[in-house]
Amino acid sequence: MQLTYGINPLLEGLLVHPSVFEKILIARGRGGAKVQRILSLAGENSVPVEFVERQQMDRLAKSGVHQGVIGFCRDRDYSTVEEIIANRREKNKNNLIVILDGVTDPRNLGSIIRTAYCLGANGIIIPENRAASVTPSASKASAGASTLLPVARVVNIVRTLEYLKKEGFWIYGTDADKGSDVTSFDYKGNVAVIAGSEGRGIRSLVRRNCDFLISVPMNGTITSLNISVAMGIILFEILRKWGSYAGISLAGEE
Amino acid sequence: MQLTYGINPLLEGLLVHPSVFEKILIARGRGGAKVQRILSLAGENSVPVEFVERQQMDRLAKSGVHQGVIGFCRDRDYSTVEEIIANRREKNKNNLIVILDGVTDPRNLGSIIRTAYCLGANGIIIPENRAASVTPSASKASAGASTLLPVARVVNIVRTLEYLKKEGFWIYGTDADKGSDVTSFDYKGNVAVIAGSEGRGIRSLVRRNCDFLISVPMNGTITSLNISVAMGIILFEILRKWGSYAGISLAGEE
Repeated sequence: MQLTYGINPLLEGLLVHPSVFEKILIARGRGGAKVQRILSLAGENSVPVEFVERQQMDRLAKSGVHQGVIGFCRDRDYSTVEEIIANRREKNKNNLIVILDGVTDPRNLGSIIRTAYCLGANGIIIPENRAASVTPSASKASAGASTLLPVARVVNIVRTLEYLKKEGFWIYGTDADKGSDVTSFDYKGNVAVIAGSEGRGIRSLVRRNCDFLISVPMNGTITSLNISVAMGIILFEILRKWGSYAGISLAGEE
Repeated sequence: MQLTYGINPLLEGLLVHPSVFEKILIARGRGGAKVQRILSLAGENSVPVEFVERQQMDRLAKSGVHQGVIGFCRDRDYSTVEEIIANRREKNKNNLIVILDGVTDPRNLGSIIRTAYCLGANGIIIPENRAASVTPSASKASAGASTLLPVARVVNIVRTLEYLKKEGFWIYGTDADKGSDVTSFDYKGNVAVIAGSEGRGIRSLVRRNCDFLISVPMNGTITSLNISVAMGIILFEILRKWGSYAGISLAGEE
């Protein structure tokens, strides 16, 4: 069970993904047009609402800024790795899976889910711990893609890599320091791309389980792109090499 | 003058871009380790601090959640379009300018500034109105690139396009609906890429002033990528065609 705090996150959560809400708390005496909207969305989606003292909400939210509204959210239904392997997008030549080992910002997770869906990946694998899960704010950043693309949560990422290798996947690790130019590979066969966390990058144990290390060449004193931008460039490059963007043949490919 | 509210935004603003702060207000009686950190950063950077009543801060912040801390920020120093034209990145073959006509989310603006800097663009042009400016939260999302890459603000984007054309730039408009496949162009000469706002895309008056319309081909029911991801893919594709990523020659370019 997760808590969602604040007027806008709750409103957006109820708009994008109402079925995850199990209950909503509203501070006694809390008013305003947006709270009215939350109440009417809760009504439309049969989400129970309780009115409680603000002090009780302060205790629940700890240091979170709840603005007098808190939602209790069910964890979403996650897929299995097998389901993701089976979900090759119809016109894609090969399987393409994205693995995020410890992305902590829900907006980055949501943005990567959106990109993976739009560019035609099978699905996304994330760890159960130390990482953002598909919260309402991730869902919002995904522009709805989180309800369309399967996401699996696994206990052990390294074992998942070993399993994917047995299933015929090549593992490409993104590593800003040690990776080779992303354009220098042909990405033949089934591909899994794995990225580490925003701050620390790929873990060394994970790196050792990769077949190839890739990076986006850059200039200047900043060592990395935003992780969702880097993943967009990498996925696009793979599809370009395959000669298919989610099955759309290229007008002017050289 | 802009206001920055809240503990974390202020802390990050003071860490990333302390020189924009002209004054900080803290609610009387407000304590805690992070407020102490704000006070010590303010001291290190000679930013004046005033202690005021919380009610006064409520009035200033209106509906913003200030958590007892408010910063007054100077608008940053913006560059001119001429300075951006003159700022060709040393090893880049041609000039590359990014124009954002109405991006409203500071995190998207910051992420695009980061990408433009890392991939070697000359600079970024944004409108004075109807758009996010380089606020501390944009600065934070840029990972510091906002202090390294020139950003110009202009009154009239269409006139800026006309000026850039006279200066020998080809204008590429990004348009998810009407654009041709981003890989189908050779991007010869000096390039300016313009994107519209997150919600509404490129304006028709702007579209009419573009030499080419481009898009990233996609699949599925979601009509567009996140704007910073799309811009990353487009800039990377341009540099790939030029055979230079910010001057880094390609290991394995076909």
